[in-house]
Amino acid sequence: MSFDRGEVREVVAAVRLGNPRALGRVISWIENASPALPMISKELAPDTGRAHIIGLTGAPGVGKSTTVTCLVRGLRARGERVGVLAVDPSSPFSGGALLGDRVRMQEHALDREVYIRSMATRGHLGGLAVATPQALRAFDAAGFDTVIVETVGVGQSELEVAEMVDTVLVLLAPGMGDGIQAAKAGILEIGDIFTVNKSDREGAQALVRELRTMIALANRGPQDWKPPIVTTVAHENRGIAELLEVIDRFQASQAETGRAGARRIARARREVENIALAKVRAEFQLDGEARLEDLARAVSRGELDPYAAADRVVIGL
Amino acid sequence: MSFDRGEVREVVAAVRLGNPRALGRVISWIENASPALPMISKELAPDTGRAHIIGLTGAPGVGKSTTVTCLVRGLRARGERVGVLAVDPSSPFSGGALLGDRVRMQEHALDREVYIRSMATRGHLGGLAVATPQALRAFDAAGFDTVIVETVGVGQSELEVAEMVDTVLVLLAPGMGDGIQAAKAGILEIGDIFTVNKSDREGAQALVRELRTMIALANRGPQDWKPPIVTTVAHENRGIAELLEVIDRFQASQAETGRAGARRIARARREVENIALAKVRAEFQLDGEARLEDLARAVSRGELDPYAAADRVVIGL
Repeated sequence: MSFDRGEVREVVAAVRLGNPRALGRVISWIENASPALPMISKELAPDTGRAHIIGLTGAPGVGKSTTVTCLVRGLRARGERVGVLAVDPSSPFSGGALLGDRVRMQEHALDREVYIRSMATRGHLGGLAVATPQALRAFDAAGFDTVIVETVGVGQSELEVAEMVDTVLVLLAPGMGDGIQAAKAGILEIGDIFTVNKSDREGAQALVRELRTMIALANRGPQDWKPPIVTTVAHENRGIAELLEVIDRFQASQAETGRAGARRIARARREVENIALAKVRAEFQLDGEARLEDLARAVSRGELDPYAAADRVVIGL
Repeated sequence: MSFDRGEVREVVAAVRLGNPRALGRVISWIENASPALPMISKELAPDTGRAHIIGLTGAPGVGKSTTVTCLVRGLRARGERVGVLAVDPSSPFSGGALLGDRVRMQEHALDREVYIRSMATRGHLGGLAVATPQALRAFDAAGFDTVIVETVGVGQSELEVAEMVDTVLVLLAPGMGDGIQAAKAGILEIGDIFTVNKSDREGAQALVRELRTMIALANRGPQDWKPPIVTTVAHENRGIAELLEVIDRFQASQAETGRAGARRIARARREVENIALAKVRAEFQLDGEARLEDLARAVSRGELDPYAAADRVVIGL
């Protein structure tokens, strides 16, 4: 549980100066749940809160990587520094599964103002919830103007990531299964902006129509913002300028209504809660290992119920 | 937070006698996180530990519901009482999304020895982890010999459900996207038995071959059991007898090697841990609401880092 405080201080200082190698080291520490995390987080804090964080989500095959490449290109053209964090919550066992996709972003490989990084989350639910916001803080403190978080797959973890960002961009494409799938994942409720990519393909207009109806029917709660649907053909860079414009418009509207700030506070709150829970969980495991095992045996034999067992765990803390 | 203890006692007693309506009420209580849960769990405990729990997972469209119907038919033919629990972890907002599928199971609608139930998990990560095992305990105490848990979608939550069962059955079908998808979801590592359904379609043999290679390459750890691949055409009931035979063979092997028991203890342990964590989380929210909000504001302004904030939450418990 020990680490070199001097080394950490030096690396974090380099992150705050925007050094990409230092940022890479910090993200590896985060990924591996280094005991230095509280110190890192403390030293990064004063420089956080500036980056605009975009979450980009969608089923495999809709063109997420290509769209990210296009967005990076557009943001770079404005002079922004851009970070990309690809999290793969569905792949606890095969860390780095996304690296193949990253190859497609070679266009930006030599650009010092763009930093692209994959992060596996080791199959730990607490892992995704704790690691992703910390990695985003590191990007933020390193001075990136925009950070794009790309998630893979459909499911709970995508909804989790959506709660960690300023703007949720949902990608769909025709011929990837019907809109019902989108509804199942709950993304109709959480998307701020929808993009129908591969819009030159058959079925694109039908998908836009279906999506429009489903968004209108979705249980989104009272909102000033009606999520627009942008059509793109990312591999030809078509529709990207419009998409960036819609993203700007959304951010302006969020700032105006005060929602941007409220969302950041809610996000910080979940972050604090998740770290606190992870701490408590670690305490169960460190102090109560043998006792937890005994309780589990009793529960598996039907001699004790799990609630009574949980009471003994919590009291024992 | 109060409830009618006499009523709960009566309903739980009826569950233990196998009454399906009582079971339905208990599962609704579980789904809605009733304050009666600790009492229910305590009263059910002595009758638990008997059912064989099968987890069935696979992407939308591979034929999960049809396969479940066939398995139920086969198990009924042996005289078993069979329960089906369909959990939809990816749909926090649209509870009951699976009910449409359930209609397809009409075949068993009038059979008193079969009980089919959907359960939504309200978008709460703790929800799925806590609610599903409790619902399985209720089925178990109600005397069902086999309970099939069907999950929808691909992602972390499916891996979670896999940890709650005795046998993990992974369904695939040709033409549903490539095997790489399967690898991403981590299911290659967790499947005990693989089924290629719709095996009369083009590409089925190629999928079986690809799957065989990928299972061999997957990081499964040392095991005595090599997961077999069964081919089925569920809508014609083909291959189901063989599938049931493989399931029996797996259970016999698990019992022989002692893995069945070890798995149940590990399961009970996770269950206890998750309930304990949910308790702690509830305490954060009840006692520390205003303070948590203040801490979150400070974090969102960069005045405090989230680890320092989490320390104050945990100390304040």
